[in-house]
Amino acid sequence: MKNLKLAAISGSRRTTVRVGNVKVGSGFTVIAGPCGVESEAQTLETAHAVKAAGADMLRGGAFKPRTSPYAFQGLGLQGLKILDKAKEETGLPIVTEVIDPRDVSWVCEYADVLQIGARNMQNFSLLREVGKSNKAVLLKRGMHSTIEEWLNCAEYILNEGNPDVILCERGIRTFEKYTRNTLDISAVPAVKELTHLPIITDPTHATGRLSLIPSMSLASIAAGADGMIVEVHRNPAEALSDKDQAMTPPMFMELMAKVRKLEKIMKAEGLR
Amino acid sequence: MKNLKLAAISGSRRTTVRVGNVKVGSGFTVIAGPCGVESEAQTLETAHAVKAAGADMLRGGAFKPRTSPYAFQGLGLQGLKILDKAKEETGLPIVTEVIDPRDVSWVCEYADVLQIGARNMQNFSLLREVGKSNKAVLLKRGMHSTIEEWLNCAEYILNEGNPDVILCERGIRTFEKYTRNTLDISAVPAVKELTHLPIITDPTHATGRLSLIPSMSLASIAAGADGMIVEVHRNPAEALSDKDQAMTPPMFMELMAKVRKLEKIMKAEGLR
Amino acid sequence: MKNLKLAAISGSRRTTVRVGNVKVGSGFTVIAGPCGVESEAQTLETAHAVKAAGADMLRGGAFKPRTSPYAFQGLGLQGLKILDKAKEETGLPIVTEVIDPRDVSWVCEYADVLQIGARNMQNFSLLREVGKSNKAVLLKRGMHSTIEEWLNCAEYILNEGNPDVILCERGIRTFEKYTRNTLDISAVPAVKELTHLPIITDPTHATGRLSLIPSMSLASIAAGADGMIVEVHRNPAEALSDKDQAMTPPMFMELMAKVRKLEKIMKAEGLR
Amino acid sequence: MKNLKLAAISGSRRTTVRVGNVKVGSGFTVIAGPCGVESEAQTLETAHAVKAAGADMLRGGAFKPRTSPYAFQGLGLQGLKILDKAKEETGLPIVTEVIDPRDVSWVCEYADVLQIGARNMQNFSLLREVGKSNKAVLLKRGMHSTIEEWLNCAEYILNEGNPDVILCERGIRTFEKYTRNTLDISAVPAVKELTHLPIITDPTHATGRLSLIPSMSLASIAAGADGMIVEVHRNPAEALSDKDQAMTPPMFMELMAKVRKLEKIMKAEGLR
Repeated sequence: MKNLKLAAISGSRRTTVRVGNVKVGSGFTVIAGPCGVESEAQTLETAHAVKAAGADMLRGGAFKPRTSPYAFQGLGLQGLKILDKAKEETGLPIVTEVIDPRDVSWVCEYADVLQIGARNMQNFSLLREVGKSNKAVLLKRGMHSTIEEWLNCAEYILNEGNPDVILCERGIRTFEKYTRNTLDISAVPAVKELTHLPIITDPTHATGRLSLIPSMSLASIAAGADGMIVEVHRNPAEALSDKDQAMTPPMFMELMAKVRKLEKIMKAEGLR
Repeated sequence: MKNLKLAAISGSRRTTVRVGNVKVGSGFTVIAGPCGVESEAQTLETAHAVKAAGADMLRGGAFKPRTSPYAFQGLGLQGLKILDKAKEETGLPIVTEVIDPRDVSWVCEYADVLQIGARNMQNFSLLREVGKSNKAVLLKRGMHSTIEEWLNCAEYILNEGNPDVILCERGIRTFEKYTRNTLDISAVPAVKELTHLPIITDPTHATGRLSLIPSMSLASIAAGADGMIVEVHRNPAEALSDKDQAMTPPMFMELMAKVRKLEKIMKAEGLR
Repeated sequence: MKNLKLAAISGSRRTTVRVGNVKVGSGFTVIAGPCGVESEAQTLETAHAVKAAGADMLRGGAFKPRTSPYAFQGLGLQGLKILDKAKEETGLPIVTEVIDPRDVSWVCEYADVLQIGARNMQNFSLLREVGKSNKAVLLKRGMHSTIEEWLNCAEYILNEGNPDVILCERGIRTFEKYTRNTLDISAVPAVKELTHLPIITDPTHATGRLSLIPSMSLASIAAGADGMIVEVHRNPAEALSDKDQAMTPPMFMELMAKVRKLEKIMKAEGLR
Repeated sequence: MKNLKLAAISGSRRTTVRVGNVKVGSGFTVIAGPCGVESEAQTLETAHAVKAAGADMLRGGAFKPRTSPYAFQGLGLQGLKILDKAKEETGLPIVTEVIDPRDVSWVCEYADVLQIGARNMQNFSLLREVGKSNKAVLLKRGMHSTIEEWLNCAEYILNEGNPDVILCERGIRTFEKYTRNTLDISAVPAVKELTHLPIITDPTHATGRLSLIPSMSLASIAAGADGMIVEVHRNPAEALSDKDQAMTPPMFMELMAKVRKLEKIMKAEGLR
């Protein structure tokens, strides 16, 4: 892990990324919402539900990088405007993906956190562009990427002058087929000992199985993660993407009760 | 996951494996001790230390399957006798590996739990032989094995009439190099939903890094694991194998305090 | 492999991509040159050497996507002008990488084939942009991408109206450490049976070892590949990137003699 | 690759393993036959067919290590007797798997080459036992084993005094799903530069797809392999294992014509 001057821990200061009133890196931050913004009703309803359950930020994709060119690609600007309305109504900061360096400037008008997806982790033009913005960046780990490569990508952003990088472990590709990917929870303490940046996990994309999300959420807290990002949809069956892995609002509500309880007692007991 | 008649959950009964006074599958069972039995002094001293810290069972290898034929291969029968003495002094049941079907009968005279290592997960002759014994079996997941293949190996043991199988997730081989293997914690809830068998994790072999073991231990508890197996050596620097990843007794003592605290509050708060 | 209308074989016609006088998909096309364009002298000298050895096209990177932001990033426009001069002197068409959708239009003024690197395989904005150009595209397989995902990326290009896609298998990431990646030669006949597009291999990046390149080149021919891309540098020791895996001109000359011989006899004997 | 005294190349002598009249390591040796011995008629008919096509040895499993305990496990001694009859009738030496150290002595009465399967590559008790026998050993690479680990397993055999080890690359486990495993053809020249032992490939198990076997066979020859092992069944549809990947006798006949042609011209042209 050489040449990581900016990412390396200097002194014992850890980075806290401020997004509105939320401080990522202090407590356990929960980002929730639909995979993609599909309509105003779907987004607003889900936004109110995750707010009620205690989420800290709203996620939602206006641009969806899809394996096939014939799959739903997102609503674009219209989607961003819907997210803006959701923010206005709920007060939740918006986390949304940007996939083209040409879009960064205007997506910044709507986003509070710019998400770089796993497929674009090494899209260096895009990394430089978000590094020049004044928005926090959620940098997902590529499904094929070593921790060292991932931290070098954070370095591309930091090197442009943007200190607000949040790392997100979202599962790596392995031979195991029961889960969609393998959530590498050991990356959480590894990143903590290698850098000063906050790190969250993505149990939804990592497992691809609703039934495993609660356990992986609690395990993330216990491992020292600074938060998690999960998919919630008011009606998963009608979702245009990831319909099999989005939680319903009641499931999310139930999970949040456990998450907040564990977070609280781990802190009280000196376990994190 | 077809054809897994014996492993499948029938009704809601989960298997509890009794080993002396220890009930694996009820509470969080901790198995600790040196990688290999190297001498009487080393083993006894370590055994007393892990007992004092609150471990439930003692681990120690008398037969070491090593990558190279020129590496330390274990003390064999002499090692088993040392383990027997350690059991006599501490009362801790013994977990020890067996690697040859011809050894099963006489290793059973000393072992309380027969360990099948990752490299032998699909050594079907060995699986059948331990399946015919009356000892509990700790079946490690092969580093290259899917959950489905692993459960089929448990089936080989169960099918011979031995119901006492404890599964152990010990890390799978991936491209990541920072950790020795990748601890697949999602295998814990996956195995829980697929079978009635108890499952523990092995943070030592999975990470190969002392600094990551505490986080991975707590994450295992939060994910619902029934226990863990870790390496402790009275003086890791002098160990003949795995010297870089064995905990010292004080480190283990400190970890155990956290482990018992988290286990207790998770149970009290209804989180597991 | 559903929804791959354009990539699917219709009738028995296979695509031949014409680049100047070169027909990729007819015979065995060899693309050779330095990893990066470092100077005019280095590039011109290497270009003349690969031309003399019988290469069909010249490769050279003006934009280098590097793991670290502090590594050599390429000469940009200056590099393209050097490549242009090399083309003028040798007559070899130019294959060069493009990494930003904003660069496609002006890189097209210099490139004959636009290369999409492994890290950008799923950079959909970039794929769409090169799909709108009138240049042939060399699409490398992501190092952790399935064949299905790769073909879907070709589909993004084809779907914009550009039929001239050349696929390039460049090694996948596995646990094996002796080679840098694992050249998946079975992808050659797999792609042939799934699509009508030509496919070449990249023995240099796949193996990362000079000593293995000749064998992997011959194996590619025998497997039915339509060509290969390899790194040649007039003086590998002074290269700014990939210095340990670039062939010297004499090594390349020797390899080309074998390549042309095998190609010829396989055709004569009806083996391909 | 330290501590590999016996496997290391001393001088320029390469090992040639003699099995009856066959010299593995000199020319391209073809081992063919059914996955498992299912009946006398099936085995004899297939044996005559592969003999007629020009195979050098007959393969056939009497003990089948199967993922599930409920799958066909082989005919055991009865299967060996059938193989013996096939040898008597065709003159082809017999290659058959042994999976239990207790079986080695009596399997040696029937086998000419003892096969160690991928799952047993690190079954060190078994390796030592075959190392004490006077039969040649075909050592398959574990599906998740590095080349270094594999060579260490050869060392276990060599270290017991048996010099006749034939290595077999049979595909490694990766994320790719189109093929059953990924044939690592680069392991062929890698093993050649690291050891003096002969190496063959197994296109059948590596690809799991009939359509890819011919290309991978030719690629193996071009890469410098000393032979290959393939599955042939008189009537694949009725096979009790691997029915989707066994060649029919006519397919094998057609492949052998190409194999012998390529082998001959590569030698004549100085390409191997």
